[in-house]
Amino acid sequence: MSASAPVQAIDPVTGAPLPEEYPSATAAEVDEACRRAADAFEVYRATPAAVRAELLRAVARGLETEAAEIIERAHRESALPLARLQGEMGRTCTQLRLFATVLDEGSWVEARIDTADPARQPLPKPDVRSMRRPLGPVAVFGASNFPLAFSVAGGDTAAALASGNPVLAKAHPAHPGTCARVGRVLAAAVHEAGLPAGVFTLLFDAGYDVGSALVRHPQVAAVAFTGSRAGGEALMRLAASRPRPIPVYAEMGSVNPVLILPGALAARGPAIAAGLHGSFTLGVGQFCTNPGVVLLEEGAAGDAFLAALAEKTASTASGAMLTPGICRAYQEGQDHLAARGAERVAQGAEGTAATGASAALWQVAGARALAEPELLEEVFGPSTLAVRYRDRAQLESLLRSLEGNLTATVHAEPAELQEIAPLLHLLETKAGRLLINQFPTGVEVCPAMVHGGPFPATSDGRSTSVGTRAIERFTRFVAWQGFPQDALPPELQDGNPLGIWRLVDGAWGQQALFARR
Amino acid sequence: MSASAPVQAIDPVTGAPLPEEYPSATAAEVDEACRRAADAFEVYRATPAAVRAELLRAVARGLETEAAEIIERAHRESALPLARLQGEMGRTCTQLRLFATVLDEGSWVEARIDTADPARQPLPKPDVRSMRRPLGPVAVFGASNFPLAFSVAGGDTAAALASGNPVLAKAHPAHPGTCARVGRVLAAAVHEAGLPAGVFTLLFDAGYDVGSALVRHPQVAAVAFTGSRAGGEALMRLAASRPRPIPVYAEMGSVNPVLILPGALAARGPAIAAGLHGSFTLGVGQFCTNPGVVLLEEGAAGDAFLAALAEKTASTASGAMLTPGICRAYQEGQDHLAARGAERVAQGAEGTAATGASAALWQVAGARALAEPELLEEVFGPSTLAVRYRDRAQLESLLRSLEGNLTATVHAEPAELQEIAPLLHLLETKAGRLLINQFPTGVEVCPAMVHGGPFPATSDGRSTSVGTRAIERFTRFVAWQGFPQDALPPELQDGNPLGIWRLVDGAWGQQALFARR
Repeated sequence: MSASAPVQAIDPVTGAPLPEEYPSATAAEVDEACRRAADAFEVYRATPAAVRAELLRAVARGLETEAAEIIERAHRESALPLARLQGEMGRTCTQLRLFATVLDEGSWVEARIDTADPARQPLPKPDVRSMRRPLGPVAVFGASNFPLAFSVAGGDTAAALASGNPVLAKAHPAHPGTCARVGRVLAAAVHEAGLPAGVFTLLFDAGYDVGSALVRHPQVAAVAFTGSRAGGEALMRLAASRPRPIPVYAEMGSVNPVLILPGALAARGPAIAAGLHGSFTLGVGQFCTNPGVVLLEEGAAGDAFLAALAEKTASTASGAMLTPGICRAYQEGQDHLAARGAERVAQGAEGTAATGASAALWQVAGARALAEPELLEEVFGPSTLAVRYRDRAQLESLLRSLEGNLTATVHAEPAELQEIAPLLHLLETKAGRLLINQFPTGVEVCPAMVHGGPFPATSDGRSTSVGTRAIERFTRFVAWQGFPQDALPPELQDGNPLGIWRLVDGAWGQQALFARR
Repeated sequence: MSASAPVQAIDPVTGAPLPEEYPSATAAEVDEACRRAADAFEVYRATPAAVRAELLRAVARGLETEAAEIIERAHRESALPLARLQGEMGRTCTQLRLFATVLDEGSWVEARIDTADPARQPLPKPDVRSMRRPLGPVAVFGASNFPLAFSVAGGDTAAALASGNPVLAKAHPAHPGTCARVGRVLAAAVHEAGLPAGVFTLLFDAGYDVGSALVRHPQVAAVAFTGSRAGGEALMRLAASRPRPIPVYAEMGSVNPVLILPGALAARGPAIAAGLHGSFTLGVGQFCTNPGVVLLEEGAAGDAFLAALAEKTASTASGAMLTPGICRAYQEGQDHLAARGAERVAQGAEGTAATGASAALWQVAGARALAEPELLEEVFGPSTLAVRYRDRAQLESLLRSLEGNLTATVHAEPAELQEIAPLLHLLETKAGRLLINQFPTGVEVCPAMVHGGPFPATSDGRSTSVGTRAIERFTRFVAWQGFPQDALPPELQDGNPLGIWRLVDGAWGQQALFARR
């Protein structure tokens, strides 16, 4: 198999190619990279947590050193504003350092110890200890819309490296120069830590061969992907059809429904309209948590709210989208809304960029949305659809008809919240994160965050791609039975040399065990 | 689609049908059962943990009340000895009560709270809280070899019910009468708890239609299976090909390699031979942790060990296997070992039961096993294969050639353990549980247990089907952002009314939070 053409970035604003070409990897190069990653795994998974924490911190320092050049290149490749990219760079480094603190703290391994009882009847009780261990080389496919925080050194890479897995990153073809620069920082940090080069590999491809070969490779143990539903489902099928199926964490589409109840509308309609407008047009609507469906009661109050939102939408400047393909898909999504009977309430300014997109506000009757469920599918971009529900029964039907989402939001007054408790309860089955009186864009990177959700928001709703729980996704539990102390990982030794929280004979604590043998 | 013929059990000892027929469910009945389970989920997932704990305890009490009849029937259907089934009944009730104590203790939800900081720059920090929540109706396919502990009221049912999921159990066609009796106990406990009947449903089928319809049904959210690799892989394919793919926890084949090092052989060869013989012939070899491959160095010490093991094997009484199909598969497995060049070292007594199986000890040269990797596949039954390795390099090659296993065992003297540290490290990637100087059969039900392992031992090596961690398998994380106290689950409320361990602003504790709002 010969490699695809080299990868070259396109300036989304001008439509012109940007300098620098990145050769697509050949099949032999992919195979070699996977074998090197597997070899590196034998070393890397045995590293103390402190070594991995220092690696993550070194990557963060390296990114900060190269930040100006990386951000400048990301700006040219993605058309994302410099200020936004500066924030995203900060978040990327924060994520890396956050996982380092998780490693320092140590309880993420979920160490458990059940000590032996040789006198137990009818059979002696064995000594059993267990904790999380890494899966193996992880193939990471970054997102177009976060060229830093969800790309080569993004959350999935940080989580995989933190828990002891080598990373095989596939450079996003829309921002290859950003990927190359970030990849150099990662490779240098791996080298300076004295770790095998196979701990981190960056591969380029203008087509799909490299990605497909990675997911099929016998040495690859897990896949992380952020992108379109079609792309994610293709990787899921590939992974499931392997002789040895492997986990896939694909983050795909989400309409992030927002329900606005009448009391909230009456109490603070203008503020909600301003917040919603800011949320659905933020970053030219290119957030996975973008609110794409707004549930709004029929009637005068909802009409007035929509009028306010329409005014803001109409005065929204055009923005350049990330790629020509994303821009085309946005336009098609708009056409589909119209073809399926939605009414365009307002449209923002048209722009001059090659990938320019206008904000759009749509509405449709609840009955129509129930009859045409495709209306409730994601349109990636600065557009939102107000679904006007007739009554509580229709609202419930609409909520039930939703697919899985990353988020679901309710704007309500306190008295309304109690009244709609059953609907909140229903929404819990439809999303990974529920919000009250806030907006879904802007995902806090913190221990409690869940950025995941039922299919098709993600391929595996049991996990999260943001927040410290993400360190768990590339691990499995391993138990050691009857092991002498010096053959156990430090996390499971009697003396608790790392001082981590553990569950010992059913009780949580950070204590050492007194030797029983 | 019309239903299959009724299910009728066969006495494995006589080959004659046992009384009682169980009608196979029709497609309409399966659909109705899944809808009822989905309706029941809306109620059941909102139950306090204490209600579910009491349900599990009521099931255990009900089983104890009916134990004599259930055990008698299981004995006739499975040919397993009464004493073994009494032990298994005890374990089944212990499992149910253990999950109840996990619910009482409460930390299994992994509650995390990150409190708000409205003054944070550049953006306010939101209040985010998260914990585990149930997935939805779980289809449970029990095992033939544990008609109680891994069947209708077994570990998967207990774990699913504990975490708030309704169960749709498919009765095992080899022990339908046991399933029916246990199912009645479960249904009665659900009824007496005032819960909807859809919380637990038992379905019979002489064929595969019901199982396949369950796995494909839109309302089914997860699948648990214990059985053959072919069966597990069929369910994995079905689940992956659904419009909305769902998790499958299939526990399949495992050869449970046992490595016996020369020092251990010299120090206590006869004791290891006795233990190994007991382990591979226990219950007519019908354990998923049965040691099917023994790695033994070439030479006189290994020969003497094998001679001792051969003597024990030759004097092993025949036992009745669980079903005619399992007995046929065992015989075919023996034929395959011979056809692939293994040498039969010893064979146990032949019996008269319709499903009678003789114990068998085989050996093969390491080079041959490397050339014929099918030799290292599971043969379910009282047979084990000694693979004679030539040197350390060949041993390492053999260990690398192993597929994923539930367990891997090493018998070694202390000095040898240090010397083979790299091999122990390698074995960690091949199994869910590692043992030193013990035997893999007999799986302790405890917090630290991991009964899982890389494919093909299980479909999803991230999980365990035994021990309290199993409560996590049918859950996903959900986050609540900006919620008022009374709209939060009790586990996440400031006051910590359940007194559970939580991670609050990065610190573990059982304390209440002082109200900040």
